[in-house]
Amino acid sequence: MELWFTELQEKGLRLGFKVKDVLFKGRSQYQEVCVYDTVTYGRALMIDDVVMTTEKDEFVYHEMLVHVPMMAHPRPERVLVIGGGDGGAIREVVKHPSVRFAHLVEIDQMVIEASRKYLPQISLALADPRVKITVGDGIEYLKTTSDRYDVIIVDSTDPVGAATGLFAEDFYRSVRNALRPGGIHVSQTESPWFYQELIGQIAGVFRKIFPVYSLYLATVPTYPGNMWSFSMGSLEHSGDIVAPDRYAALGCKYYTPELHAASMVLPKFVQDMIKEDPPRGVPGEAVERPHK
Amino acid sequence: MELWFTELQEKGLRLGFKVKDVLFKGRSQYQEVCVYDTVTYGRALMIDDVVMTTEKDEFVYHEMLVHVPMMAHPRPERVLVIGGGDGGAIREVVKHPSVRFAHLVEIDQMVIEASRKYLPQISLALADPRVKITVGDGIEYLKTTSDRYDVIIVDSTDPVGAATGLFAEDFYRSVRNALRPGGIHVSQTESPWFYQELIGQIAGVFRKIFPVYSLYLATVPTYPGNMWSFSMGSLEHSGDIVAPDRYAALGCKYYTPELHAASMVLPKFVQDMIKEDPPRGVPGEAVERPHK
Repeated sequence: MELWFTELQEKGLRLGFKVKDVLFKGRSQYQEVCVYDTVTYGRALMIDDVVMTTEKDEFVYHEMLVHVPMMAHPRPERVLVIGGGDGGAIREVVKHPSVRFAHLVEIDQMVIEASRKYLPQISLALADPRVKITVGDGIEYLKTTSDRYDVIIVDSTDPVGAATGLFAEDFYRSVRNALRPGGIHVSQTESPWFYQELIGQIAGVFRKIFPVYSLYLATVPTYPGNMWSFSMGSLEHSGDIVAPDRYAALGCKYYTPELHAASMVLPKFVQDMIKEDPPRGVPGEAVERPHK
Repeated sequence: MELWFTELQEKGLRLGFKVKDVLFKGRSQYQEVCVYDTVTYGRALMIDDVVMTTEKDEFVYHEMLVHVPMMAHPRPERVLVIGGGDGGAIREVVKHPSVRFAHLVEIDQMVIEASRKYLPQISLALADPRVKITVGDGIEYLKTTSDRYDVIIVDSTDPVGAATGLFAEDFYRSVRNALRPGGIHVSQTESPWFYQELIGQIAGVFRKIFPVYSLYLATVPTYPGNMWSFSMGSLEHSGDIVAPDRYAALGCKYYTPELHAASMVLPKFVQDMIKEDPPRGVPGEAVERPHK
């Protein structure tokens, strides 16, 4: 008997995974949480019928989410991860020897517990002594805390339900307030194929809030559109890599110092999405300029 | 009533497209050819239940397949496309003003006819006076022809059935023989997620046959794994862009001169796939070297 999990990725588009085994199925006060063992991508964490991470491809997302801001910071010591209850981002964070304190603020205890039990290769660093776990609302936490961080990483679900507030201007302002001098923030910001408007809006907000803004990309095969975007805001540093010698210790499968720079070289249609002045005319056509 | 087309991309993985309309369905002596109008990606050409190209994302594949070798050549005049009966590659080729002769050798007349009728935005340049169309077997053609080309582009289906020979060493040798001095060849070579062995083998073959070998990547959302690889062999030129000033005339939506270089910056796991000496140890671990 064949068992398939099918994600409706977009209107009219679905990705189906053949399932060997259902390992966990639960409903928390926020969402439905499942772990399936799939034929193609190994064990996979699903929230509300959307793939969050899989054993086979999680390294792409987690390495790119974490190492780009971490390697752009001269010495990240205190790091905050909002969301990311699977532990994948924290695992990459604590690979940096400068880190003294890594704080995970995840709203849903069930995500943490299911990942601890069924995704040990992803969640293993949650047991690291430098890691503190707070089960709570990241938006509320950042509004009220006096804690300050060198790097703040938002590893959220899509901008629906509980995660909507993680894509709002108010939230990014409280992120900025919680950064130490020289701090860097990154948020996952969906696929340019399906969220062009969101990515453009976030570009506008980040340019208002952060002195330095960059957008970079990675290819995540289990996410809709697969070209995935990360929006980075920095108080001081350029976003470029500052200490390539720290790379060797990270044991990466996707990220490299050269890819750090190359991931910020955007395809033309993605460049156009985040232009400060919307382009006039179409590529390749002469644009009429007013006479001086 | 909902109509879905579902491609079995890999064992245990399928991508489903909601279909608004079935525009064409035919069976040639080689394969089944269909054009569906899909909700998410517009009109799509399918061969034997595999997506070949869609209106919404075809620019990624066609621009990257064509402009990287064309912009790495100082003056491409004679260009051969093997496969690519939809006309998308030819459309990009003839955007280069230096091109005097563009030759399409496609095995299946039905692909050309269905594309002409139902995918006019992709096939439109097949009517260009510089374009010659030969309906025939590209492998046989290259074995026997005395024609010579500056750029030879292989725009094939997956390495099964009629296309298998397009991934064989003998074929690449006849490609090399049909290149003019300074000529450049590129083949689409599938996804690093699912064809790591093929990509490694082709790297070995290209390094034997061509003085210069490069691998580059693009993100094609409707192809399995979505990270797509292109293997390039060159008789003389480095593979780097030689004439960025030619870019403005191309009207690209994906390719840029900066992306030309960035597309060759490979993720670590793809670098490892094409290493000349397979890596010893794992990334981040010291490799023991014999004492001198």
